[in-house]
Amino acid sequence: MQYKKAMESIKINVMQKLLKANDAIADEIRKSLKSKGIFFVNLMSSPGSGKTTLIEETVKKLGKKIKVIEGDIQTTLDAERLQKLGVQAYQINTGPFGGDCHLEAAWIKTAITELGTDGMDLLFVENIGNLVCPAEFDVGAHLNVLLISVTEGEDKPLKYPLAFQVSKLCVITKTDLLPLKHFSLKKLRENIKKINPACAVIEVSAHAGTGLESWLEILKNRPGF
Amino acid sequence: MQYKKAMESIKINVMQKLLKANDAIADEIRKSLKSKGIFFVNLMSSPGSGKTTLIEETVKKLGKKIKVIEGDIQTTLDAERLQKLGVQAYQINTGPFGGDCHLEAAWIKTAITELGTDGMDLLFVENIGNLVCPAEFDVGAHLNVLLISVTEGEDKPLKYPLAFQVSKLCVITKTDLLPLKHFSLKKLRENIKKINPACAVIEVSAHAGTGLESWLEILKNRPGF
Repeated sequence: MQYKKAMESIKINVMQKLLKANDAIADEIRKSLKSKGIFFVNLMSSPGSGKTTLIEETVKKLGKKIKVIEGDIQTTLDAERLQKLGVQAYQINTGPFGGDCHLEAAWIKTAITELGTDGMDLLFVENIGNLVCPAEFDVGAHLNVLLISVTEGEDKPLKYPLAFQVSKLCVITKTDLLPLKHFSLKKLRENIKKINPACAVIEVSAHAGTGLESWLEILKNRPGF
Repeated sequence: MQYKKAMESIKINVMQKLLKANDAIADEIRKSLKSKGIFFVNLMSSPGSGKTTLIEETVKKLGKKIKVIEGDIQTTLDAERLQKLGVQAYQINTGPFGGDCHLEAAWIKTAITELGTDGMDLLFVENIGNLVCPAEFDVGAHLNVLLISVTEGEDKPLKYPLAFQVSKLCVITKTDLLPLKHFSLKKLRENIKKINPACAVIEVSAHAGTGLESWLEILKNRPGF
């Protein structure tokens, strides 16, 4: 038990140093992209909440000045989906590095260098599908967005508060499934407000094509830029 | 960069020692519960895939010889849901310990001591909703079960392989939503088999009340016990 406690304290010590280094790089990214007129949006959610689909719909409406950094443990499936639409996408796989459950600012910095900033006015990071770890690492975005689908349940803001606290916008997805689900949209909105009263909330359904105007309007207004 | 590399190597070093200590405790739990005739099942999934609901339905069918350990970052919502059905539930909140994204064997050992093993023949652990981290930590279960709902997409086994590799059973949930979704059950089953050919796969819908017989049959057969 003594041994375990000592190990835990080393782990926490290292983690704090890593987070500090991460935050410095994140700030550098945020400033550098702003100076080039590039708005940087970080999308976080559980697996399968519709991050890639939302980016696809955005690309279809706003065209090709968008670049995307995809985070996944394994596969290049999401980057391939986006490349089909003609946008430049860079895939980060954390699998070879122990299957990390989040993205870090240093990797984003490298990815931006690889992608190049020419001809870009909007950068998306699609973070690893996970409601816990990505919220702990600032990737340098101007806007953190949390997606939650109506099939995930109303209680998620209470159970994963940090992800909702670090996000300025919450996008409720798959609202086309609402008629079928035992789910209260009102309750979910109340729980989001309880955890983060300043969080804006919009509803979209990519399949039904509803709610996208609000999303595009927000991207135009560039909150946090 | 040198500094970061050194820090990373310390992190990995510590992590390996922690995992080794964890595995020893997990083995001890597995043996101890077996000697008492208690079958231990660990449920893993994304947030909102239906773990608590599956346990609720199981309790309704199999009665009160079940005890449950609930893992969440915050809240006792799930333990409260189960206590309403008259089963003993123990809530682990990782929030005060840095919001850990997984459960460890040492915490399970403590929770089992607190719950007591008298009058129990089946123990569920509902792991933290996350497809990444819980798969890395053996909690001492005889059977690891992975739940995935039909709204999460067919590609998840390819993107989160470890969670599917460590599980002997995959439960596809919310199949009542199938008629509405742009989703191929066939493709999901193919992807599971690609990642883990030995994994059994069943389909359930708690809301429609279908597929539960197969689940109960598996619990009766006690694979891995």
